[in-house]
Amino acid sequence: MEFRGQIAILSMDVAEDGGMAAGYELKLNSYDLGVDIELYDAIQRLRFEHPEIRCVILTSAKDRVFCAGANIAMLGSSTHAHKVNFCKFTNETRNGIEDASQNSDQIYICLVNGTAAGGGYELALAAEYVMLIDDGASAVSLPEVPLLAVLPGTGGLTRVVDKRHVRRDRADVFCTLVEGIKGKRALDWNLVDELVPRSKLMETAIERAEEFATKSTRPTDKPGIVLEPIAREIADNNITYKTLSANLNRNLSKAEVILHAPGEEPPQNIEEIHTLGSNFWHLAFARDFDDFILHMRANEPEISTWVFKSSGNPDFIEAGDKLLFENGDNWLAREIVLFLKRTLKRLDVSSRSIITLIEPGSCFTGTLLELALASDRSYMLDGVFENSNLPAATIKLTEMNFGALPMCNGLSRLETRNLGSPDTTKKFKSEMSNNLLADSADELGLVTFIPDDIDWEDEVRIAIEERASYSTDALTGLEASLRFAGPETIETKIFGRLSAWQNWIFQRPNAVGDEGALQLFGTGKQANYDRKRV
Amino acid sequence: MEFRGQIAILSMDVAEDGGMAAGYELKLNSYDLGVDIELYDAIQRLRFEHPEIRCVILTSAKDRVFCAGANIAMLGSSTHAHKVNFCKFTNETRNGIEDASQNSDQIYICLVNGTAAGGGYELALAAEYVMLIDDGASAVSLPEVPLLAVLPGTGGLTRVVDKRHVRRDRADVFCTLVEGIKGKRALDWNLVDELVPRSKLMETAIERAEEFATKSTRPTDKPGIVLEPIAREIADNNITYKTLSANLNRNLSKAEVILHAPGEEPPQNIEEIHTLGSNFWHLAFARDFDDFILHMRANEPEISTWVFKSSGNPDFIEAGDKLLFENGDNWLAREIVLFLKRTLKRLDVSSRSIITLIEPGSCFTGTLLELALASDRSYMLDGVFENSNLPAATIKLTEMNFGALPMCNGLSRLETRNLGSPDTTKKFKSEMSNNLLADSADELGLVTFIPDDIDWEDEVRIAIEERASYSTDALTGLEASLRFAGPETIETKIFGRLSAWQNWIFQRPNAVGDEGALQLFGTGKQANYDRKRV
Repeated sequence: MEFRGQIAILSMDVAEDGGMAAGYELKLNSYDLGVDIELYDAIQRLRFEHPEIRCVILTSAKDRVFCAGANIAMLGSSTHAHKVNFCKFTNETRNGIEDASQNSDQIYICLVNGTAAGGGYELALAAEYVMLIDDGASAVSLPEVPLLAVLPGTGGLTRVVDKRHVRRDRADVFCTLVEGIKGKRALDWNLVDELVPRSKLMETAIERAEEFATKSTRPTDKPGIVLEPIAREIADNNITYKTLSANLNRNLSKAEVILHAPGEEPPQNIEEIHTLGSNFWHLAFARDFDDFILHMRANEPEISTWVFKSSGNPDFIEAGDKLLFENGDNWLAREIVLFLKRTLKRLDVSSRSIITLIEPGSCFTGTLLELALASDRSYMLDGVFENSNLPAATIKLTEMNFGALPMCNGLSRLETRNLGSPDTTKKFKSEMSNNLLADSADELGLVTFIPDDIDWEDEVRIAIEERASYSTDALTGLEASLRFAGPETIETKIFGRLSAWQNWIFQRPNAVGDEGALQLFGTGKQANYDRKRV
Repeated sequence: MEFRGQIAILSMDVAEDGGMAAGYELKLNSYDLGVDIELYDAIQRLRFEHPEIRCVILTSAKDRVFCAGANIAMLGSSTHAHKVNFCKFTNETRNGIEDASQNSDQIYICLVNGTAAGGGYELALAAEYVMLIDDGASAVSLPEVPLLAVLPGTGGLTRVVDKRHVRRDRADVFCTLVEGIKGKRALDWNLVDELVPRSKLMETAIERAEEFATKSTRPTDKPGIVLEPIAREIADNNITYKTLSANLNRNLSKAEVILHAPGEEPPQNIEEIHTLGSNFWHLAFARDFDDFILHMRANEPEISTWVFKSSGNPDFIEAGDKLLFENGDNWLAREIVLFLKRTLKRLDVSSRSIITLIEPGSCFTGTLLELALASDRSYMLDGVFENSNLPAATIKLTEMNFGALPMCNGLSRLETRNLGSPDTTKKFKSEMSNNLLADSADELGLVTFIPDDIDWEDEVRIAIEERASYSTDALTGLEASLRFAGPETIETKIFGRLSAWQNWIFQRPNAVGDEGALQLFGTGKQANYDRKRV
């Protein structure tokens, strides 16, 4: 990473021996999950630690190669689950790049200074502007179908037709051409935005970056905050972060996650948020929760149900929500809300059943209430527990529930829940800041069930046990279908359509069988395909 | 089928021994592909042969059971390809029911007079209004996930949240309840529109049907036309219909399909169309082509590429297009256009590569031009063939290309091609009725490539040979992703998202392995699931 005033140059320079696992070399700037984690970290830090950066030039430090995409030997030797999980994360990172450009005014442009193949071109597609070296040799390509019998798995197909509006017949030609497309045709077909001669590469990129930078509203004179290392402890069945802790029950395939409200009065003004930096609860929670989701996805595939509870003072969350909302024009407040948005989107697309339990002592208010709204179902105790002094649980809507944290479909979770009755939003607004007891929450449609003390334990237990007894694959398909009612966007297409096709293809013998293309790639042997269509 | 004035009563009464294959009994009004073909035929005939029918009551002739959905033993014993193809066809039939209600003013309501499980409830969901018997026992249910480890495969998940706007957490509960939901809760959750006591079932249904009938514009005093049997000959490698013929090349996995323009002057007015009935070219073509697509999908899975050519007088097609367009308020003209629309949609969602070759002597005008626009790519000869007297090929836009035949995404094929430049429509309109030579067609973006005589043969041959060398699964995923750029609708969600997830699940051991739920259903044995999430 190199910084030049308002411009950062992020150069990909993958160490061949830097792979996460043995058995493959990361040649030609190809990547595995480890590389993408580093990319994700760089993007996050650019947002929080560098408010002065208005434009990022994404390029390669290698000569004549931009990026060869996901490492094929790594894919070929990975389990189905790892492939799918890897694609999900890389997709989220690409979406995060677009979020930075479109919502943080930190605009990504891409200087493709050599060949960009497969995931390499998909990385470029995440940028707002793509420059390609015009050297008579370097091409952009999506050769997955002809070469590997799988799809470009990081949004390439969707972005080609839906973001860049490449005509669908041209897209068909492009995606079946092993050698890709270079030069004038790449420009004519809108696969790239500009051709640049080798002699003027960085000069031109800086020029474009400066043009984009003038359109940005990011402050050039404010200091960033430091993203301190995340404090976490991982034991066999317990995971502890500052703002949440989880207990794993492997018999029931569930994690019980307790979200902790801030332990002390939130800051009084935006300056105090800056001072707190990554210790400010809302940011700390976003980071902890983000890390938790990724840890669970990658390392705990058998924990199929995530059960959320919460504890602490809901007023502290509400105050933080309010402060962030009132300072919407402050760059840091904006970044924190956008980070919360991305993290909650990650939750939505996690292939885990999500159940929220709202009990006395809980604090499902505003930002945390989004977790209940993101759940496949929620239970709220009506009344109190017999052996407890805690008053009845309440939930509360804050400004954060009305569009600041949209889902992939572009709607708030409240809107998605109430597609049939758009007027409901008005009703919700009139309840903002009210403490809602179970019966009101039920009447408003904010929770699924409101058992009382007598039924609570049985009802919750049966729901979790039943969930554990169902096929995890069927649940994944069910949840992916029910969570995103309403309009579709590039993101829902990528996660809901492209990924589902890829999941299917990632299992088919033509790709992963002993004679499949993904297995035989690089061996010189020809794949042997079943020619039947289904 | 029973006719009562403006109302038809279509009662499902499946013969247990009427299955298409051996090894299963069609108990409880469960269905297989054969039953659904009959349903499809009934719906088509209602549209064409019964203009007087304004409302159709869909119900069951069995006592206490409406429909048990797709036959599980049939599914369990079917190949993956058959399962997928079966679901595609049943989905198209359900979409056809909605098309009748929404665009033909032949409105379907459903009288669920007993239990409706799985595909049974999905059939009801295709209706505009669902009445459920209130007998304390009959429920609607989607028990696929808990019972069979697969998804409801006929649009149920999508229609529950996107058409009926059932709240997503309630949908989650509903879709994981084996016994389903009955009575007041079914009504409260909007799973049905009305509860009816047993004593007043048909009385109430007729009453509602009459209310819907008053909103319809279908003529009550016009005679229908008869859909004569389709004339076709199927030999080993040749298929012949009146309006098209196909030659199969099994080495290259391709069918070369020649579309024949009308052989004679088209009718001069709408009355002549009525007289010609199903012999009118546009209707005959829709029926032949529809039948051809279905035949190829079900019986020729290894024919992976469909290559379209055409021959005949394009003026006759143009004249027919014009006549249909000018008589848009005539019920029969409307039905013919809607049928063409549905047939072309079937083409769009067929998992076959589609290539159109536009040569001298061809007639890709208006309606037939849609096939070129539906293709994954098209080639148009620039100039003439050296050894031929035929003049250079032209194509022509007619009224039919501007929205009368929308794709599943709600856009015309022209609009989908030109998402990036909406103004293009104006440009296209100004070219309507002009004979467009290859260079103009290319400039307008209506064709993919325009090789000349010298390059034609090689270029086309290589494209087809290359296609045959790729993995059919990867091509299916590629085509499904590139064909439907732009907005999403219930239909694109069903074909592009739900079906893709189902394809995946239909291959997973949890469903179809020796210990999978679909295999063990009915044996009394418990499925043994891999509990890992991917």
